[in-house]
Amino acid sequence: MIKEFLRRLFLAFTKNTRIYRYTNIYASANIGKNCVIGSYTEIGDKVRIGNGTKIQAMVFIPKGVVIGDDVFIGPRVTFCNDLYPKASGAWKVSRTLVEDGASIGAGCTIVCGITIGTNARIGAGAVVTKDVKPNQVVAGVPAKQIKSNWKHE
Amino acid sequence: MIKEFLRRLFLAFTKNTRIYRYTNIYASANIGKNCVIGSYTEIGDKVRIGNGTKIQAMVFIPKGVVIGDDVFIGPRVTFCNDLYPKASGAWKVSRTLVEDGASIGAGCTIVCGITIGTNARIGAGAVVTKDVKPNQVVAGVPAKQIKSNWKHE
Amino acid sequence: MIKEFLRRLFLAFTKNTRIYRYTNIYASANIGKNCVIGSYTEIGDKVRIGNGTKIQAMVFIPKGVVIGDDVFIGPRVTFCNDLYPKASGAWKVSRTLVEDGASIGAGCTIVCGITIGTNARIGAGAVVTKDVKPNQVVAGVPAKQIKSNWKHE
Repeated sequence: MIKEFLRRLFLAFTKNTRIYRYTNIYASANIGKNCVIGSYTEIGDKVRIGNGTKIQAMVFIPKGVVIGDDVFIGPRVTFCNDLYPKASGAWKVSRTLVEDGASIGAGCTIVCGITIGTNARIGAGAVVTKDVKPNQVVAGVPAKQIKSNWKHE
Repeated sequence: MIKEFLRRLFLAFTKNTRIYRYTNIYASANIGKNCVIGSYTEIGDKVRIGNGTKIQAMVFIPKGVVIGDDVFIGPRVTFCNDLYPKASGAWKVSRTLVEDGASIGAGCTIVCGITIGTNARIGAGAVVTKDVKPNQVVAGVPAKQIKSNWKHE
Repeated sequence: MIKEFLRRLFLAFTKNTRIYRYTNIYASANIGKNCVIGSYTEIGDKVRIGNGTKIQAMVFIPKGVVIGDDVFIGPRVTFCNDLYPKASGAWKVSRTLVEDGASIGAGCTIVCGITIGTNARIGAGAVVTKDVKPNQVVAGVPAKQIKSNWKHE
């Protein structure tokens, strides 16, 4: 509890990164400058997060995930790191990469081993099972293309 | 921590509203009488919740959401408030309204800017992207009508 | 807070079961040996969990759910216990059973009153609305069969 409080203080002062209450951030996670991380979010072992990234509440980011700069991750987004999870025995981390400027809507599930490209948009509630191209807009279960070339309005 | 405990005590005594542990309720949120709010639930800035409403665990309700009386919100339901979220820059709250007596099943994602009508029923796991009419039953991703006229059995 | 800490200590020493932070486990829940239970997970009244089972973060398991041995439950999986939930009045628990060796992917919603058979596999993000047979692999919303006979690779 105290350790967590000190960590929040440290990130706020050295990196201007704001961490909300009840987060669970591993000491080995590397979080950039000017980020916001919402309540109940867990950021696992050796996860890397760039600068200016906004992560909402209740997000789960396990080991093996790398997130770029200026990424938006909506509330309750869940990343994975094992394609065939089981209760015991060896397991293999499949890496997932979210590139700069991507935006992932609320409640999405991101299956592991994929890349979400620069400025890609993922609609709320999607289950993403394969790579998303830069500027591509996808939605649904499994996620399919809605638009190939996202432009900010 | 102490502030949260006092808030729970206050709501319990003055409004008979029961708040479970690890909730994150903004001071500006307005919660009615005889409500129940489950663990790990976040209720954001200026959210209004009516009387007799039951909100399960792990629910995310951000600014811009108004919930009526006698509404049921299942575990892990996620509301949004921004149609085109991004990491930085201006953002616009789209309001979402849940009318009296509606019931939202476990794990639903509710895209913003819509109204869920009186006594509507949303099946578990649905992603709701447009208005739901009073007494309508919807389910799926995106949510579609299953029945037009819900009657309590 | 202290009660929770003592409970974690007790389970660690007597059963070699590891409970992470911010969990909400009812005193009446029965958890087996050699289990792991992730952060922000709620395990409700009289839930039974077998031995060697691994439950990830942010999982919601209410009253009426029974989980066997060596089961894997991914992050943010949500179980239910009432088919027609409403804010007030009587409610009926529909029981859900997860048999030994089953694996449930990240972000799934499991509607109540069903059985998930031995060694069944549920793909990430699925909404499971009916029984899953032993060794069956299902995915999607609602979950449909992908393979009838799962073999560990």
